[in-house]
Amino acid sequence: MSVNINVKSDIEIAQDATIKPIIEVAEKIGLTNDDLELYGKYKAKLSSETLKKLETEKSGKVILVTAINPTPAGEGKSTVTVGLGDALHQLGKKVMIAMREPSLGPTMGIKGGATGGGYAQVLPMEDINLHFTGDLHAITTANNALAALIDNHLQQGNELNIDQRRIVWKRAVDLNDRALRKVIIGLGGPIQGVPREDGFDITVASEIMAVLCLANDLKDLKLRLSRMVVAYNFKKEPVTVGDLGVEGALALLLKDAVKPNLVQTIEHTPALIHGGPFANIAHGCNSVIATKTASKLADYVITEAGFGADLGAEKFLHIKGRSAGIKPEAVVIVATIRALKMHGGVPKTELGQENSNALTAGFTNLKKHVETIKSFGLPLIVAINKFVADTDLEVETLLSLCEKEEIPVALTEVWEKGGKGGLALAEKVLNEIENNQMDFNPLYDLSDSIENKIRTVVQNVYGGKDVEFSSKAQKQLKDFESFGWGSLPVCMAKTQYSLSDDPSKLGRPTDFVVHVRELKPSIGAGFIVALTGDVMTMPGLPKSPAALKMDVDEEGNAIGLF
Amino acid sequence: MSVNINVKSDIEIAQDATIKPIIEVAEKIGLTNDDLELYGKYKAKLSSETLKKLETEKSGKVILVTAINPTPAGEGKSTVTVGLGDALHQLGKKVMIAMREPSLGPTMGIKGGATGGGYAQVLPMEDINLHFTGDLHAITTANNALAALIDNHLQQGNELNIDQRRIVWKRAVDLNDRALRKVIIGLGGPIQGVPREDGFDITVASEIMAVLCLANDLKDLKLRLSRMVVAYNFKKEPVTVGDLGVEGALALLLKDAVKPNLVQTIEHTPALIHGGPFANIAHGCNSVIATKTASKLADYVITEAGFGADLGAEKFLHIKGRSAGIKPEAVVIVATIRALKMHGGVPKTELGQENSNALTAGFTNLKKHVETIKSFGLPLIVAINKFVADTDLEVETLLSLCEKEEIPVALTEVWEKGGKGGLALAEKVLNEIENNQMDFNPLYDLSDSIENKIRTVVQNVYGGKDVEFSSKAQKQLKDFESFGWGSLPVCMAKTQYSLSDDPSKLGRPTDFVVHVRELKPSIGAGFIVALTGDVMTMPGLPKSPAALKMDVDEEGNAIGLF
Repeated sequence: MSVNINVKSDIEIAQDATIKPIIEVAEKIGLTNDDLELYGKYKAKLSSETLKKLETEKSGKVILVTAINPTPAGEGKSTVTVGLGDALHQLGKKVMIAMREPSLGPTMGIKGGATGGGYAQVLPMEDINLHFTGDLHAITTANNALAALIDNHLQQGNELNIDQRRIVWKRAVDLNDRALRKVIIGLGGPIQGVPREDGFDITVASEIMAVLCLANDLKDLKLRLSRMVVAYNFKKEPVTVGDLGVEGALALLLKDAVKPNLVQTIEHTPALIHGGPFANIAHGCNSVIATKTASKLADYVITEAGFGADLGAEKFLHIKGRSAGIKPEAVVIVATIRALKMHGGVPKTELGQENSNALTAGFTNLKKHVETIKSFGLPLIVAINKFVADTDLEVETLLSLCEKEEIPVALTEVWEKGGKGGLALAEKVLNEIENNQMDFNPLYDLSDSIENKIRTVVQNVYGGKDVEFSSKAQKQLKDFESFGWGSLPVCMAKTQYSLSDDPSKLGRPTDFVVHVRELKPSIGAGFIVALTGDVMTMPGLPKSPAALKMDVDEEGNAIGLF
Repeated sequence: MSVNINVKSDIEIAQDATIKPIIEVAEKIGLTNDDLELYGKYKAKLSSETLKKLETEKSGKVILVTAINPTPAGEGKSTVTVGLGDALHQLGKKVMIAMREPSLGPTMGIKGGATGGGYAQVLPMEDINLHFTGDLHAITTANNALAALIDNHLQQGNELNIDQRRIVWKRAVDLNDRALRKVIIGLGGPIQGVPREDGFDITVASEIMAVLCLANDLKDLKLRLSRMVVAYNFKKEPVTVGDLGVEGALALLLKDAVKPNLVQTIEHTPALIHGGPFANIAHGCNSVIATKTASKLADYVITEAGFGADLGAEKFLHIKGRSAGIKPEAVVIVATIRALKMHGGVPKTELGQENSNALTAGFTNLKKHVETIKSFGLPLIVAINKFVADTDLEVETLLSLCEKEEIPVALTEVWEKGGKGGLALAEKVLNEIENNQMDFNPLYDLSDSIENKIRTVVQNVYGGKDVEFSSKAQKQLKDFESFGWGSLPVCMAKTQYSLSDDPSKLGRPTDFVVHVRELKPSIGAGFIVALTGDVMTMPGLPKSPAALKMDVDEEGNAIGLF
C-alpha cells in the first residue's frame, strides 16, 4: 500500500519553494554583502577576512545528529538535521546548520540526495547536488595534480628515490567508477612514464578531503598538505608532499575550496555546507571551519555525521571534535520504524505490512547506538523520523521501547511539515541541553597503541568480540609506530550497513570479529585509516544508474534529480 | 642583456590593477544585475534568459587574432587580443573581447598564462587561471561520468554488445599527466569491471569541450552530446551516447558551463571568456555562444584562435565559422621579432643579439600565414608585438619586409602600455575593415572526401607536398565514409611548432609530407580529427613544473602564478 500517490518529489518541492537572496539570509546572522563571495544569487562563500574576524567570537552550542545503521528503507538523517534547525528557528533561536556537501558519485549512481527531503531541504538543491561552488572539483584537481607530480618525479630522474612499487597516493574522481579501482598506468614505452600499479578512489575518500575538513585555516591546510605521505623510498622511509615541495601549489588550488558555503533551508534557516567525506571510507563530517564558523554566528549549530553512530559519530567525537576542540552538547540519534523493521528481519518488499515484533527485534540496533553515545558521556535524544505508512501500533511500540529504557525520544514529521514537524524534537533537545550535565570523555586515549585504539572501537562502539589483523596490517602496525605515527587517532573504514564488518549482519550482531586487511597513513589529516572487511574506497554504479533518468530542459531546469 | 630588471611580473601588475565590480562593466554594454549570475564580485555568467533575449539582436563585426608558429621566444597572441580590444575601447568603439579559458595542465606545468600579459591582461587573472567558474571541471566530470557509464554498461550485461576492444571514448583530467596516456583498467577480478585498454586525454581535447564550444544553446548541446560516438559494437557499428540514453544527464552536468563568463581587462573592457580547446589537439577556438553573444552586445568583437594560423585560424574558418555562420571582417596575425629570429635559425640563448639576417630568413614563416589568410579572401594586418630588447634596425627590417610585400603592418606595445600601445594597430584594423571588400571563401567544400579535405589543408595551409595515411587511417577513411561521416570538416591534430608535422622544422619548410596515423570521429562536435606525426592528446610535465614555484599566502593571495 502506498499513500504517497499525490505527494510531490523532493525536487518538485525544492523548485516550488520560495528562495530568498542569500544576502538577506546572511543579514539575519549579522553578515553584510562584504562578508560574502556570491556564487549566483543563492549561494555564497564567506570571505577569508570574515572567517578571521569571527575567530575571536564566543562559541554557540553544537548539536550532533547521527543515526542507526542505514538500510535501504531510509533513515532521513539529513532531513532531520535540516528540520531540527528549522524547528529551533521557529522557536526564535539563533541557529545555523552545518552539513556536508554531496558527491556526484552517489548522485549519478543511486537515487538519494544529501540535501534533506520533503519540506526539510537545503536550497538550491540542484546546484548543491551538482557542482555547487566547485569544492569537490578543486579537491579532485589537487589530488590528481599531486599524482601527476609524483609520476613526473619518477619520470624525470626520481631524485627522492621513490619506490614505484610503494606509491600510496592514489588518483581520484568524484564519480562511482569501479573500473578504475585497480589499474596499470605509464604503459607505452619510456616517454609515457614509468609503468606501475595504481588505483582511483572516489574524491570523498581522498586525504585532501579530510585535510580540508580538519584544517583550521589556509595556513593549517598548507601545513597538513605538506605532511601527507605519498610513497616510500627504496629505504622504505616515508616520502611526503613537503619532500616534493608542492604543498604551496596544492594549497593554491584549494584557496577558495577552504571557505565554507552559505545557503538556506526552505524556511530560510542559514546553513553552511562544506566538505563531504563519506563516513564509511573516510571520517564522515563536514569541515571544522564550517562547524566553528557556524558556532560563532549562532547560539545553536545543528551538524550531522555520516551513516550510523558507529561510523560518523564515533569519528566526530574521536577525530574531528578532539582535533578541533568541539564538544557536542547533545546528540540526536535518528531512526525510522521502517529501518528498524529491516534490522528486525523484514525484507524491503514487506515493509508496508505492520510488524511490531520485527520492530521490537530491530530496536536492538538503536539501543546499541544509544549505549555508545552514553558511553561517551553525552546527553542524547532519539528522533523517530515518522513515515506516513507507520501504523499507530508501531509508533506506540517504539515509543514504549524507548521509554522502558529511559531514552528521551521525540516523533518528528519534518519531511511532511518542515520545522513545525520538528518542534517536539527541538524542545526535547533544548531540555536535554539544559538539564543534563555533559561529561564528555573519548573512549580511547591518543597514547594507546594503534592496535588498541582499533580494538577499543571494535569492542566498545561496534560491540564486537575482537579484531583480527592481516599479516600486511600487522607489519604496518609495527612500521607505523616506528615512524612515530602511533599517537594518531584511527579512522575506521567499515561497511555502513552493519555494526560488524559484514554488511549482511543487521540488528545487533554479537560475538563477531572485525578483520583489518590494511592500514593507510593519513598524516596530513592526522589519523590512521583501518580498512576492514571488503569495504571499497571506490563505489560502483548500479545496474540502472540514476543518470539514466536525469535531464535538463531548454531553460536549464533539472529533471529527474531525486 | 636584460633590460627588464625592474619590470613587474604579470601577476604583480594584475594584483596592483584596479578592478571594477563586474556589474559596472556589464552596465556599459547594456546589461543589468538581472542578466548576471555572479561568481564573486568580478566574474559572472550571463543567464540563459539573457542569452535567449540577445539572439535576435543584430551582430557586430568579428576580428580574428592569430599568429605565426609559436616558439619558446613567445608571440603574445592573447596579449595583443586584449590590447587591441582596449585600444578600440580607447577610440570610443563599443567593443568586446572573446577568448578561451585556460587549462590547469599548462598552468601547473609550464610558465605562461592564457590571460594576456603586462598591461594587456584580463582580470581576475588568478581566478581565471585556476578554477574560474568551474567550466573545465564540469566538462571533465561529464567526460568521466560518460566513461564510468560505458564501463558500467559492460559490467551489467552489455545490452548494446559493445566490443570492449573498440571503445573510443577516453577518460580525461585537466592536467598534464603523461602516465595516464596508456593504461589498463578494470583489473582485480569480476567485481572490479571488465579489463581493457584505456587512456586519458587532457580535458581540452575531450569531445565534450568541442561540443560545448560549437553548440548554439543548451538544446543543441544535448543533441550534439547524443550524437557522440563512444564505441563500436561486435558488428563494428558505432554506439552513441544516445544509444546509452545518458545525454540528458551529461547536459545536466553542463547546464551552467554552457553559459559564457563575463570578466574585464585591466582597462575595464568587457570580455567573455568561455571554452578552451587547444588548437594543436582540438579545434582551438572559444565558444560559439561567447563569440555570438559578444557580437550582439558590441559593434566589434576581438576573438583569438589558438597557436599559429595553420591551426587555430584554419579551424576557426573551416569549423567554427562555417558551423556557426561567423565570418571575420579582418584577421590580425601576431608576430614578434624574437620568434621570427628563431624561425630564422637563432637559438633561444642568442635572441638578445641583434640579427636582422635571421629575422629576414624567419620572415618566411610569417609570409606563409599571410598567404594562407589571403587565400581565404580575408583582409589582414600583421601586428608586430614589440619587445623592449628589439633593436631599431630589427624593427626597420621587419617593417620594410612587410611593406615590400604590401602587407599592412602595425607595431604594438600593448604589454608595456596597454590599449595606448595598440592604437596604431586598432586604426589599421578599422581602416582595413572599411576599405577592403571581404570575399571569404573556405579552402575546401564539405562535399569533398575526408582524404581530400585533409590534403587541401596540408597543401594549401601548411605548404606541404602531400599527406600519407597509415594503414589504420586508410581503413578508417573507408569506414567513416560508409558511416555517413564523409561530409564533416576535418580537425587536424598537429604540432604547433612547425607548419609541418615535425616540430623541429621551423621557418617555412617545403616538400614535406604530413603523416596521418589515426582518425577519430567527433560526431557530436561535427568533425573528424586527424592525428598527425607524434602529436599527443595528453601533454607531460617538464623537469621542473611551474607548480614547484606556486604558493598562496595566509590571506589567500596567489604567489608564483606567472
